[in-house]
Amino acid sequence: MADAKMKILAAACRSLEKKGFHATSMNDIVKESGAPKGSLYYYFPGGKDEIAAEAILASGEETAERIRANLKGGNDFPTALGKFTALIAEQMETSGFSAGSPLSVVAAETSTQPGKVHDACQKAYRSIIGAVQEALEHTGMKASAAAELANFIISTIEGGILLGRCFHSQDPLLSAGGFLQNTLINQNIKEVQV
Amino acid sequence: MADAKMKILAAACRSLEKKGFHATSMNDIVKESGAPKGSLYYYFPGGKDEIAAEAILASGEETAERIRANLKGGNDFPTALGKFTALIAEQMETSGFSAGSPLSVVAAETSTQPGKVHDACQKAYRSIIGAVQEALEHTGMKASAAAELANFIISTIEGGILLGRCFHSQDPLLSAGGFLQNTLINQNIKEVQV
Repeated sequence: MADAKMKILAAACRSLEKKGFHATSMNDIVKESGAPKGSLYYYFPGGKDEIAAEAILASGEETAERIRANLKGGNDFPTALGKFTALIAEQMETSGFSAGSPLSVVAAETSTQPGKVHDACQKAYRSIIGAVQEALEHTGMKASAAAELANFIISTIEGGILLGRCFHSQDPLLSAGGFLQNTLINQNIKEVQV
Repeated sequence: MADAKMKILAAACRSLEKKGFHATSMNDIVKESGAPKGSLYYYFPGGKDEIAAEAILASGEETAERIRANLKGGNDFPTALGKFTALIAEQMETSGFSAGSPLSVVAAETSTQPGKVHDACQKAYRSIIGAVQEALEHTGMKASAAAELANFIISTIEGGILLGRCFHSQDPLLSAGGFLQNTLINQNIKEVQV
């Protein structure tokens, strides 16, 4: 992907996670990216909807990639998940509680508005939950059980991010992450196989 | 509270959970409530921010009240929580996946925007988490442990609602609720004392 295009998407992500989809204008993305307005329409002729959809997909892929890197083979799953959650909590604080992926904000705003942005949110969540499911399957869990548990894990983390951003504190996410970790230990979830 | 005022707040809640804070205009609330525009400014001289903040507080109180009613004395806590989660999932579907409390949408959108709407989101979450904590304390749990567990429970349910609305399916919330229930059973959380 062209550098200029990636810069625009990164700028869109920052604006979306800070202000949400509806309050983000093309001008906000122009300002945040430093790119000339013409280049936004050159790369994204579909305008704001197209930029937001691509930004959500890119952000979902990046999160899925980070999950794969953090829950990779050789790691004890519960410990690795606890560490990953703590990492998200730290980054959330560093960003002044704006970060936490634009996905959750945009998904919440557009759930009753069919279209490419809503489709992108579904696709991004599928990638993210899929990445957790895959790691769980590599601990020896069956696909259907791993899919259900992955859904529970992502629900808890997304809710923890929501509360953490609202309270401007790492605590809700750290605490939810700790409970998750204990739950997984009690369920005897083991090492991710290479 | 005057009937007219309550109608306006109920209309604001419906619009907020469907479209979010930024995309909801005073005209949307006028249309949804059927009230004359003048009466909106009569009851809420602070305009949209004031209506949204009061709507969030009222919705938070209503949710806390429902939690207290569902997790009341004499109930087995894990079973009652599982039933309550299933009830939310059903209502979410009945509403065409727009419902699930305006709180989560507005909290996600306004987390970096200080002001009365953000304050109302914090206050509403405190009420909701507090209602769960109280029920847990009535199972014999200590206050600090109950507060942490209540935070975990609300994180998981909020995340489940987010995913359920995004996928237009009860499944993510039902599945997350089932895991929660099992986790609580394994932790030996008992009956709520009267």
